[in-house]
Amino acid sequence: MNRYSLNQATTKYWPLEDVVAASAKAELSWIGLWREPIQEYGVEKAAQLVKDAGLQVSSLCRGGFFTATDPAERKAKIEDNRRAIDESAALGTDTLVLVSGGLPPGSRDLEGARSMVRDGLAELAPYAEERGVRLAIEPLHPMFCSDRCVVSSLGGALDLAEQFPVQQVGVIVDAYHLWWDADVYRQIERAGARICSYQVSDWTVPLPADTLLGRGMMGDGAIELRRLREACDAAGYTGPVEVEIFNQELWDAPGQEVFDLALARYQEHVA
Amino acid sequence: MNRYSLNQATTKYWPLEDVVAASAKAELSWIGLWREPIQEYGVEKAAQLVKDAGLQVSSLCRGGFFTATDPAERKAKIEDNRRAIDESAALGTDTLVLVSGGLPPGSRDLEGARSMVRDGLAELAPYAEERGVRLAIEPLHPMFCSDRCVVSSLGGALDLAEQFPVQQVGVIVDAYHLWWDADVYRQIERAGARICSYQVSDWTVPLPADTLLGRGMMGDGAIELRRLREACDAAGYTGPVEVEIFNQELWDAPGQEVFDLALARYQEHVA
Repeated sequence: MNRYSLNQATTKYWPLEDVVAASAKAELSWIGLWREPIQEYGVEKAAQLVKDAGLQVSSLCRGGFFTATDPAERKAKIEDNRRAIDESAALGTDTLVLVSGGLPPGSRDLEGARSMVRDGLAELAPYAEERGVRLAIEPLHPMFCSDRCVVSSLGGALDLAEQFPVQQVGVIVDAYHLWWDADVYRQIERAGARICSYQVSDWTVPLPADTLLGRGMMGDGAIELRRLREACDAAGYTGPVEVEIFNQELWDAPGQEVFDLALARYQEHVA
Repeated sequence: MNRYSLNQATTKYWPLEDVVAASAKAELSWIGLWREPIQEYGVEKAAQLVKDAGLQVSSLCRGGFFTATDPAERKAKIEDNRRAIDESAALGTDTLVLVSGGLPPGSRDLEGARSMVRDGLAELAPYAEERGVRLAIEPLHPMFCSDRCVVSSLGGALDLAEQFPVQQVGVIVDAYHLWWDADVYRQIERAGARICSYQVSDWTVPLPADTLLGRGMMGDGAIELRRLREACDAAGYTGPVEVEIFNQELWDAPGQEVFDLALARYQEHVA
């Protein structure tokens, strides 16, 4: 279990202190954190809490959202991403997860939007490296391409990442977003040392009305989670495996119950 | 307008005779047909109706659904696909659209399911060629991968198609399913003479509860429809461009109104 990391978004309404305590009690090494609740709790205070529990932060979610036609808006996003980098450094994680942003309103220029992502990375990458943080591009499922993330495949994420040194920009391999891709195993091999994290949940149908909350518990869906994990391992990835599930039913369930279930399902379907 | 083809599924509740008459009156050359309503109307009778109106059938939708763990079920599907080939020949179209089928219930073996698709194609391809019909694999959007179509990208479709002679197996380039792919222009070039049809609708959000009915009218969404059409042209495709929209609001509107709107939007956004 030394690679297991529960992202706190999986137990969204559970207080940070509870998920940290549960992770420590289960003798885990890692925990995944989310910016908004950490800002609310206090970044320095959260860093201390995690450290005192003997945990390390696997990643901070999330920066990005680079795509905007208004230059002032793009500049504001860059500033926000600098803060996210500072927060990552303060929390002691080397991985800042970036969601690219969708098409600007009214635009159909997908290549233009992807260029904005590249430009954002270029502005931030040296700043991040100086602070020991790597920018981790997370390709999202193609159903989010227009409104959330114009980077929709691991190949597309690597096309961007490879324009930067490997210690500056990497990628997130999230099974939920990538499992359907006939090219995914080849792209994981290509990713190699660019892999910043392997994240797991499961693909279940039908999708809920809010498609952001469609992720299932490992084992409840269609994804070969262990095989994808083994492919990441074979590509040289030895870091934490993060459980990240957005699901209203799980959010409404008691935190400890979800914590225990996720851990058991990880052992059964991923480890 | 000599490439324009309205697929009858776009005006689902409009009688075949009306959509044929409207297409003839608009001096179109093509019409796209759907198996179930054609079977109901009578295949021979439909062929005569279309011919008398001076139209050609751009494609017949659809065969496929090859993925099943039960051999008897797979065999029944092959038989049904033979009928679909016969119907295509009777209607005078050289293009039978195939939707691959999703993962068999309870299975996570995506590669196994894709092998079933390949085996199905192998059984049918010579039979189809003898009747002047090409099997056209349609990759569906990755959100349909688990339950409808394990072929989720143009690259994946070509990986299958290229195992067969070009006159036996081709691919459908449907903008709705493929627009998000960072690799799509390269894959269209790769497809070349394998392109059996270019189909258009538009990507709009949010998705409806029934995600099958999420397609928007051209111009209402995020897709660079003209650019994709030009890429197909550059790859050597000179055939019909089919409008295929599944959308409850459009289905509920008067057929002639939708017919006129689709034609106008095609000229504005695709031609």
